[in-house]
Amino acid sequence: MITCSAPGKVYLFGEHAVVYGENAICCAVELRTKVSVEKSNEIIIESALGCTGLDHKIHPYVSYVIEKMQQFADIKGIRIIIKSELPIGSGLGSSAAVTVASIQALNLLFDCGLSQEDVAKTAHEIERMVQGNASPTDTYVSTMGGVVMIPLKKKLDLIDCPIVVGNTNKFSSTKELVGNVAKLKSEFPCIVEPILSNIGQMSVLAESLVAQGDYETIGKLMNINQGLLDSIGVGSAELSNLVYAARNSGAISAKITGAGGGGCMVALTREDNAEDIAKAIENAGGEAIITKNTEEGVRLESLHG
Amino acid sequence: MITCSAPGKVYLFGEHAVVYGENAICCAVELRTKVSVEKSNEIIIESALGCTGLDHKIHPYVSYVIEKMQQFADIKGIRIIIKSELPIGSGLGSSAAVTVASIQALNLLFDCGLSQEDVAKTAHEIERMVQGNASPTDTYVSTMGGVVMIPLKKKLDLIDCPIVVGNTNKFSSTKELVGNVAKLKSEFPCIVEPILSNIGQMSVLAESLVAQGDYETIGKLMNINQGLLDSIGVGSAELSNLVYAARNSGAISAKITGAGGGGCMVALTREDNAEDIAKAIENAGGEAIITKNTEEGVRLESLHG
Repeated sequence: MITCSAPGKVYLFGEHAVVYGENAICCAVELRTKVSVEKSNEIIIESALGCTGLDHKIHPYVSYVIEKMQQFADIKGIRIIIKSELPIGSGLGSSAAVTVASIQALNLLFDCGLSQEDVAKTAHEIERMVQGNASPTDTYVSTMGGVVMIPLKKKLDLIDCPIVVGNTNKFSSTKELVGNVAKLKSEFPCIVEPILSNIGQMSVLAESLVAQGDYETIGKLMNINQGLLDSIGVGSAELSNLVYAARNSGAISAKITGAGGGGCMVALTREDNAEDIAKAIENAGGEAIITKNTEEGVRLESLHG
Repeated sequence: MITCSAPGKVYLFGEHAVVYGENAICCAVELRTKVSVEKSNEIIIESALGCTGLDHKIHPYVSYVIEKMQQFADIKGIRIIIKSELPIGSGLGSSAAVTVASIQALNLLFDCGLSQEDVAKTAHEIERMVQGNASPTDTYVSTMGGVVMIPLKKKLDLIDCPIVVGNTNKFSSTKELVGNVAKLKSEFPCIVEPILSNIGQMSVLAESLVAQGDYETIGKLMNINQGLLDSIGVGSAELSNLVYAARNSGAISAKITGAGGGGCMVALTREDNAEDIAKAIENAGGEAIITKNTEEGVRLESLHG
């Protein structure tokens, strides 16, 4: 049994603006989906969602991965076990992580010879099959790890302060939110277009700040980015609530991460107050996870179990 | 005894941006400060703050008004009674209203012959004496009423939907908030300057929408304006809380009005749901007032008591 894992990600800057070609900065986080694979007589996929065979409804990503990998190897029976630290559908890239880790696990088990670039590319193909118009960002960052400037895929320095994620546990549809922004943009182009380029501009400013490890200044920009996200209609009562809870308890910064509406917010914190901020988020009704940036993308966890 | 009243105001668009010469739209609201004056043997000022003589600490605006009006008339003894529907220091222009109403009451009692323009100008002088660097907006709108585009002082059509004000009852210092925005602007000019001009641009767009009575579209712009205010750091947990409570209970729009930090938010509502929105604001911990736009600025309420 081979086990591979792949990380989730948060957006430090640029969600939504990236849809319009603006720059964004994504940061892989040490919250991983582990996928274990072993040869078997039949196809079995086990996860928190249930135990199925090839099933494009319950396990769409893994089912498409198996079919795709059958092009590279003679995969008949396979048992796949998925364990994830990433809340599903919360904007942390859980679908990218399970896709990337599954591809790599099968790649290694069947010696398919896919490079890391191939894994990222294949994972993006799978996400497009399932979601329609998926961006390559999540799958790329999950495969490569680190801090990545999108769309140029430029690796930046690592973020080494604690990162606290707050989950509203409220479902939101990325497709719907992206559609709402597009609608607002077409209704008020002279208002919304400058907001989107302003968000893009922040990533450009932040690049050198990341190199300097100047988290205080990065944080001020993230807080501005939060307001701009709220301005284009992707905020919510729950998100603002967690954002202000984090800021008011001493976070360096706090903003929505991902599509907004519901899902998650992210806070940068100091070494000594990550726990306080996590508690404040919990007290405000969110679910908090303390994590950190990870240099490693998809990786082999174990060759034997 | 002569009684005059003057209204407070809300910003539909443009607070903070107006400091940098951008356009803003202010709307006089039917929440008034009434000032009654009668000749007396001594100077007596009565308000919710206490009963004093000339007192530049407890009644700075009215004390300066008396001294200023002594230039136009032989005012020795005077009794002034102040009653206000406007919460003090909450960004609704309570100091402008008391100043304007006092000037006009003394103007009429002593037949000083000041025109409405003179009243506005004199009131602005008084606000500058007390506050240092006061803008002429509050005193102008309180004197003239209506809906006013700043800085050109252009009168727009009236807003005829209900207006709900939500007070966080949290003190905030306008001076400090304006200073914080200036600091953020000097730290990130290429980010903050476009935000301020974007806010200004909204007033330009809104002018024709006000003429058309298109409150739905005005509301969308106000909601964008709210996020932009949050982005420049003048939001707060309490304000966001009331803003989302109003929106989620069906308000057309909801945003900060005034300097932010604490103070008030304002919502436009439909005729049939102003009560619901007021209740939602109260349930979220705010103090709600249902009001409406008023065409009348300073006015004579009564010549006899």
